[in-house]
Amino acid sequence: MLMVDLILKKRTGQVLTDQEINFIINEYVKSNIPDYQMSAFLMAVCFQGMNEHESTALAMAMRDSGKVYDLSKIKGIKVDKHSTGGVGDKVTLVLGPMVAAVGAKFAKMSGRGLGHTGGTLDKLEAIKGFQLEQSEEDFIELVSKHGLAVIGQSDDVTPADKLLYALRDVTGTVDSVPLMASSIMSKKLASGSDVICLDVKYGSGAFMHTVADAENLANVMVKIGKLAGKKMTAMITSMDEPLGHKIGNGLEVYEAIETLKGNGPEDLVTVVTEIGAYLTVDAKIFKTLEEARKELRKTLTDGRAFGKLREMVVAQKGDVSMIDHPEKFLTAKTHKIYADKAGFIESFKTTDIGTAARLLGAGRLTKEDVLDLDVGVDIHKKIGDKVEKGDLLATIYHNDKGLKQATEVLNSAIKIGKTQKPAELIAKVIR
Amino acid sequence: MLMVDLILKKRTGQVLTDQEINFIINEYVKSNIPDYQMSAFLMAVCFQGMNEHESTALAMAMRDSGKVYDLSKIKGIKVDKHSTGGVGDKVTLVLGPMVAAVGAKFAKMSGRGLGHTGGTLDKLEAIKGFQLEQSEEDFIELVSKHGLAVIGQSDDVTPADKLLYALRDVTGTVDSVPLMASSIMSKKLASGSDVICLDVKYGSGAFMHTVADAENLANVMVKIGKLAGKKMTAMITSMDEPLGHKIGNGLEVYEAIETLKGNGPEDLVTVVTEIGAYLTVDAKIFKTLEEARKELRKTLTDGRAFGKLREMVVAQKGDVSMIDHPEKFLTAKTHKIYADKAGFIESFKTTDIGTAARLLGAGRLTKEDVLDLDVGVDIHKKIGDKVEKGDLLATIYHNDKGLKQATEVLNSAIKIGKTQKPAELIAKVIR
Repeated sequence: MLMVDLILKKRTGQVLTDQEINFIINEYVKSNIPDYQMSAFLMAVCFQGMNEHESTALAMAMRDSGKVYDLSKIKGIKVDKHSTGGVGDKVTLVLGPMVAAVGAKFAKMSGRGLGHTGGTLDKLEAIKGFQLEQSEEDFIELVSKHGLAVIGQSDDVTPADKLLYALRDVTGTVDSVPLMASSIMSKKLASGSDVICLDVKYGSGAFMHTVADAENLANVMVKIGKLAGKKMTAMITSMDEPLGHKIGNGLEVYEAIETLKGNGPEDLVTVVTEIGAYLTVDAKIFKTLEEARKELRKTLTDGRAFGKLREMVVAQKGDVSMIDHPEKFLTAKTHKIYADKAGFIESFKTTDIGTAARLLGAGRLTKEDVLDLDVGVDIHKKIGDKVEKGDLLATIYHNDKGLKQATEVLNSAIKIGKTQKPAELIAKVIR
Repeated sequence: MLMVDLILKKRTGQVLTDQEINFIINEYVKSNIPDYQMSAFLMAVCFQGMNEHESTALAMAMRDSGKVYDLSKIKGIKVDKHSTGGVGDKVTLVLGPMVAAVGAKFAKMSGRGLGHTGGTLDKLEAIKGFQLEQSEEDFIELVSKHGLAVIGQSDDVTPADKLLYALRDVTGTVDSVPLMASSIMSKKLASGSDVICLDVKYGSGAFMHTVADAENLANVMVKIGKLAGKKMTAMITSMDEPLGHKIGNGLEVYEAIETLKGNGPEDLVTVVTEIGAYLTVDAKIFKTLEEARKELRKTLTDGRAFGKLREMVVAQKGDVSMIDHPEKFLTAKTHKIYADKAGFIESFKTTDIGTAARLLGAGRLTKEDVLDLDVGVDIHKKIGDKVEKGDLLATIYHNDKGLKQATEVLNSAIKIGKTQKPAELIAKVIR
């Protein structure tokens, strides 16, 4: 088998066999296929696509390039979720404790990632002492005992995906549904859970701008998961405004705690409850979505979900006093932004809100950037809210760095207009 | 300017500026753009194409990556030709002496190339002692004095094209009209002639199988040449059968000598006369194509064209006794192939005829292969010829190597059927 022939096969729109896809991934990881052939192949995939079967073979070949977790020692059905990434996305921090509170096994591995804020790992590091590095044995024990654990993904998981992602980043081949879908799913499949819910974002703060694009990606990922034997759900959710109010690592933990105590913003509660409902029904904890929604919402007011977060923080050696006194996450200086006119919040440039947080130090542009876990942005208004001139629109939490630029970016990211339009939240559920 | 942005620009079907194309070629030659970005870019070009302006900018950027010949010291209008490559294509060997005989300046640089037989350089090396390596000064003197010279292209011409070609070969990006057109034209533009005729082959022995594909390539090359200030012609000629009868390095020199003495096969004479007619009219030697054709044909019978070949061989230190006694090219052993049934020659698998010659040692698969300049194939019949059972179809010239395999390939490459179909020769002329 010659790589140049496989490149030509894909270039001319033919379907690759499982054997051919395995050859490509295996030989590439062994450096027997050079980057210049792989990048030509990836570009051909960008134009010709891959069918579901090819995408699944690609995801599975990448999964098998490294460590695959075996969670069979954990009793019960293991659940996992993944978000394609949004501004203010603290779903994992709320969802994990909620579903663990009703008896699901939430076994979550996270990455750090580049972006507006850090990933879930960085957010959890805002809790002093929180131990993210755990061996497979310890991870299994934590989930078995407490019903949840969030750990850093081991470096030896999906090395093929890491190599490919780095190559795609510099060769203009990031934006391809089969490549994105197989990249995400390779990691989910390596993580070993039985039930997976994908939160696929669309809108002004997401990689996919339209529902149709997000749906397209979600469909492929759901099919890959099903072909690999997983119970799959994908939810297409809006990123036309930040989820909840707070953006920033510590700030998001703060908002998650408030939510777990029953004081959360309605959009965040709704998204988390919906994802949790599908996960727990698929995990056979509840018979109907209606029942699941009711029970999950109850965990936010009866202290069970908050208790599970506290239990996880204790188990993973985090400073539990920060959970009990969440005001400890609000130590940065504040700068307030007020409305310069009356009207309704018509839209947000959500990506720009994320950029403002990153400029303050909440996010990374390169792997080497060091985060300031205390800074970020609190957006007090949601789309459709009425605003009077002089109303408080946003609070910037800063430690001086980037304040001026972040303020400018933020000011132009909030559009006040004359019409009141409702915000969409969940556009579609794919099963 | 970032290469990844230019890759994305081409991927999304946008038109690159001259400045952007220059950046890509200049930085690639300096190794500031890695192969993996270039191959992704090339694959994007395969899908999105390039307009004439981009193709011209690419050809000119590649031309300017190395030595560009200045032939202005040669008085008169310099003419050049290029063939996209065919089986039995000895046009240069006949054309050069013919047009020089009527006063044109034929300044030809050739490559070696891979293929069924060697390139024009290899063919000329069948003439013992023939000096192909010449300095620019000597080349100019030869053409000035004798009206013609054929030399090896200097290694420092179009280094960008050499790098790109090697990369395209292993990344499935050879087959792209703008890339092929700019590659060929970069070399033609670097060679410094004023008038260029391209012989673009189509058919069973050519890279382009249909007239439409060949025409497409020819159109782009003609436009590149015109935009670069050259007088351009492209002739779309058939490779559904070998040109003339003989395939092999020395064998083709033999046939060229016979042709220059007025004993050539009609298809070869016609193609050479047509190319010569356009070149000499564009060089203002003749006023009309009709006049040019008549005068050019006359050089084959009055000894002038043969005299010019002889003059060139003497000037370039070749063994002129081989020109005077061309039977010296026919020293290999012969093996004859006879018709096993009666009928008409319906078609040839022309590429297979070339393969037979290569198997005997006439051509290269890799740069390192050493050629046997004496071996090859003589196909005695043309498409449409009547054949009786037992008629001599072909003579193999061999030195034992590859005889069995070549015989097999050749036997299945000649199709005798019941219908007499005329062969096409020149499908179209593009100016």
